[in-house]
Amino acid sequence: MNIITLYHGSGGKGTHELIDNIFYKYFYNKILDQQGDSSIINNINGRIAITTDSYVIEPIFFPGGDIGKLSVCGTVNDLAVVGAIPLYLTAGFIIEEGFDVNDLEKIAISMANAAKKAGVKIIAGDTKVVEKGKGDKIYINTAGIGSLRNDVNLGIANIEVGDKIIVSGTLGDHGTAILCKRQDLNFETEIESDCNALNGLIEEILNSKLKIRFMRDITRGGLATVLNEITNHREQGILLDQNCIPVREEVSGVCEILGVDPLYIANEGRVLVVVASEHSEKVLDIIRNNPLGKEAAVIGEVVKDKYGRVLLQTNIRGTRILDMAEAEIIPRIC
Amino acid sequence: MNIITLYHGSGGKGTHELIDNIFYKYFYNKILDQQGDSSIINNINGRIAITTDSYVIEPIFFPGGDIGKLSVCGTVNDLAVVGAIPLYLTAGFIIEEGFDVNDLEKIAISMANAAKKAGVKIIAGDTKVVEKGKGDKIYINTAGIGSLRNDVNLGIANIEVGDKIIVSGTLGDHGTAILCKRQDLNFETEIESDCNALNGLIEEILNSKLKIRFMRDITRGGLATVLNEITNHREQGILLDQNCIPVREEVSGVCEILGVDPLYIANEGRVLVVVASEHSEKVLDIIRNNPLGKEAAVIGEVVKDKYGRVLLQTNIRGTRILDMAEAEIIPRIC
Repeated sequence: MNIITLYHGSGGKGTHELIDNIFYKYFYNKILDQQGDSSIINNINGRIAITTDSYVIEPIFFPGGDIGKLSVCGTVNDLAVVGAIPLYLTAGFIIEEGFDVNDLEKIAISMANAAKKAGVKIIAGDTKVVEKGKGDKIYINTAGIGSLRNDVNLGIANIEVGDKIIVSGTLGDHGTAILCKRQDLNFETEIESDCNALNGLIEEILNSKLKIRFMRDITRGGLATVLNEITNHREQGILLDQNCIPVREEVSGVCEILGVDPLYIANEGRVLVVVASEHSEKVLDIIRNNPLGKEAAVIGEVVKDKYGRVLLQTNIRGTRILDMAEAEIIPRIC
Repeated sequence: MNIITLYHGSGGKGTHELIDNIFYKYFYNKILDQQGDSSIINNINGRIAITTDSYVIEPIFFPGGDIGKLSVCGTVNDLAVVGAIPLYLTAGFIIEEGFDVNDLEKIAISMANAAKKAGVKIIAGDTKVVEKGKGDKIYINTAGIGSLRNDVNLGIANIEVGDKIIVSGTLGDHGTAILCKRQDLNFETEIESDCNALNGLIEEILNSKLKIRFMRDITRGGLATVLNEITNHREQGILLDQNCIPVREEVSGVCEILGVDPLYIANEGRVLVVVASEHSEKVLDIIRNNPLGKEAAVIGEVVKDKYGRVLLQTNIRGTRILDMAEAEIIPRIC
């Protein structure tokens, strides 16, 4: 078999063949091997975190990752930022007829590697095939199940005026890498996506027992959207210092050429941390000591503002409002 | 807003608008309302069942249901057949640009109604929008989480020679309803899909404490495929009596016209139960007393067979082998 046909989505021999030759082969674990209509896992102590995300990124292979790695890291990150230890993933594949089986295998290997690195197991799956022209190569849904740490209490409601805003690294890498690949732009230095699982880094932050108020991974809509989600309907605003926001020079350059703003672009391996002012330097140190957080920075603070605005103090000493993403969008960035 | 645009998948204002106006409105519950990256649920006692399924059915509205109802019932059934009480669903939407927002609302209402009827909550979701021609109206993934009953032990390994095979109703209704709708075939009596959540019926069966060996819902690949999954690599076969297999007359008729076999067609509200011979009549009574099981029947039994074959004793007194679905397939039946 070299390409996916409708036969592989029939639920009969073709589907079983695909499952045995690719999914069971690379995702193998005892829970998945139950091969039942549902997979049975042991008791999870305490509260449970659950999330779901579908990945429709185009192109499916890009500098720094692919749709498989992304589908594992994205969902792991959604669990980690609420203070959960990611444990299990489910994986649902919607494949377009004609898709190359070798590419499917590459994606499965990439998912398996990312899952191993993040310490999660893929325990249930589903495969559907749609006719040519009714999909675009492959779409992947992952749902994630994690065990909530009982020593953390994270939430927007915890945020206080004076708290500091930290980002764990440079912004805009993922979105810019995708745009360059899509438009076939070549520069001297290739921009790589920041796509990575952040649960290890986040565990280190939470283990510190410092006053962490809230965390969110900075995905669709970018930093501006995440910050607006925080201030929305609240009497707190956020004041950012543009000089402190880490953006790679080549990312800035590409964004200027393409007319997009790195603060509105999706990242897939960056977390925003809101921390009590007195602990911000300690938290920054912890993040910077992790290989995924070397370029972390304190970028601003929470201020009193009855309009709940996100304000950017710009390099030319002006201040502008960063609204939630509206007209500016990059479709299928994740 | 009347149609879905890429704007609704941006993660910014458009996505928030869609979530507020449709998903939160109809799926509302306190867990979903946490609006976090992951939803937090309370401790689940004992073992947990987890499953995932993507739904790509075409057409999305059909007699007896729609893709929304199906996406809830199908996943609920996958939890119920392993002996779990379905509790929570996640929902991931992949919507094609240009999709009618009114249709999305109808689908959301249908999901909400099906979830309410089945006693499950939709606690996490995700929306992606793909360009026109890169999808087909709407695809839905649901992952399901249930609490495994500790008083049941179901598994293919429990099956013994002499056990009886029960189906909970007529076969082929769902697949035939879809085919008729797709081909615009009109008959005097419209064939309706059997799409339904079976967790109530299955709970009644399990509450009886009778010797239930194994259950599976009879979906993609139909009865023949499910039975082959049971006998595959085992030294037990299954002998079916064609006279006992319930198939509606109009379904038989349509299948003959279209050249398909109702035993290979997907059902979405039928469960296969393997039960100890001495308890088969009692179990049959329980099923028949439920509105969803009125036409249940004992259709055959487990026999010794070192080739693991599924054999059908036909009306003309011959016996033929029912292999797993291979060439015969109906794409996008679920």
